[in-house]
Amino acid sequence: MAETAERARLAQLESLGDPTRFAKRIHGLITFSPLFETFNLTEIRVLSEFMQVYRAGPGAEIIREGDAGDFMVFLIEGRIEVFKQDRWNAPRLIALIAPGQSFGEMSMIDGEPRFASCIAAESCMIAVLSRDSLARIILEQTTLGAKILMELVLILSQRLRLTSSKLLDYMDREKT
Amino acid sequence: MAETAERARLAQLESLGDPTRFAKRIHGLITFSPLFETFNLTEIRVLSEFMQVYRAGPGAEIIREGDAGDFMVFLIEGRIEVFKQDRWNAPRLIALIAPGQSFGEMSMIDGEPRFASCIAAESCMIAVLSRDSLARIILEQTTLGAKILMELVLILSQRLRLTSSKLLDYMDREKT
Repeated sequence: MAETAERARLAQLESLGDPTRFAKRIHGLITFSPLFETFNLTEIRVLSEFMQVYRAGPGAEIIREGDAGDFMVFLIEGRIEVFKQDRWNAPRLIALIAPGQSFGEMSMIDGEPRFASCIAAESCMIAVLSRDSLARIILEQTTLGAKILMELVLILSQRLRLTSSKLLDYMDREKT
Repeated sequence: MAETAERARLAQLESLGDPTRFAKRIHGLITFSPLFETFNLTEIRVLSEFMQVYRAGPGAEIIREGDAGDFMVFLIEGRIEVFKQDRWNAPRLIALIAPGQSFGEMSMIDGEPRFASCIAAESCMIAVLSRDSLARIILEQTTLGAKILMELVLILSQRLRLTSSKLLDYMDREKT
């Protein structure tokens, strides 16, 4: 696994050991989870074997805008604030992430720099899935791999709809 | 396959028969194709067995905003204009699609109504992939299925980055 600044920050968080211990907890969140809503407990358990679970204290920066990043994060507990620099380089709060939701999918997939920063607003428990692990799942657990990819497509599609609608609202507003 | 208004319109287009005949042509477009850029000719050939190829005359509406839709389209030849109604219900041209590019992925995946209308600006040749066919590929051609899903995630991720950046530009502008 490539040693990036982001990896180094992740390594400083408290690792919570065997991730399969959290499978039931993650499964309990699926009502709130666009990513895992169609997953059963067995699938979550298999998937969790490929993840790492960490505790992040308040203020911990899990993802930094502009950094190279190769993992996505599923929030088990706590609250994450998403900031993006505006044109004056001031951080603008653009989203809040609640338990059950995930973030960081874009860079995990496309390898481009992180679009925004994700900071723990309080003590958080997170499960991390790296690009390498996703590739292994696709090879070793084909059906589960396809299911994760389907859900990722779904999530991104819904975010794209939402963002496109907002953009068109702004464009309409400018026209008036 | 569910008979939707969109399917009925598609059925009125001129079908060009055996889709594998177009595999080489599609493969020739991969330099321009975010979807197929990593596909070799054999993969395109297998994939094309699951597609239908049509000729659409100038003005043909391939996708209509608000309609139920369950397929995506790969443009082989011609030019497609993408329109979305603004708040005054006037069509606004929001994108142009060139050969090698694809459209309609969002509804194929998430089953939500079409976000915009896609109209042939000139005589077009299109290859159509339905949700059912994609599901069959995932089951019958697992590796190819995973590859398509990966590419879909990639495309959506890149579109989401672009759209989010534009949205933030507008939000910044409004702040000034």
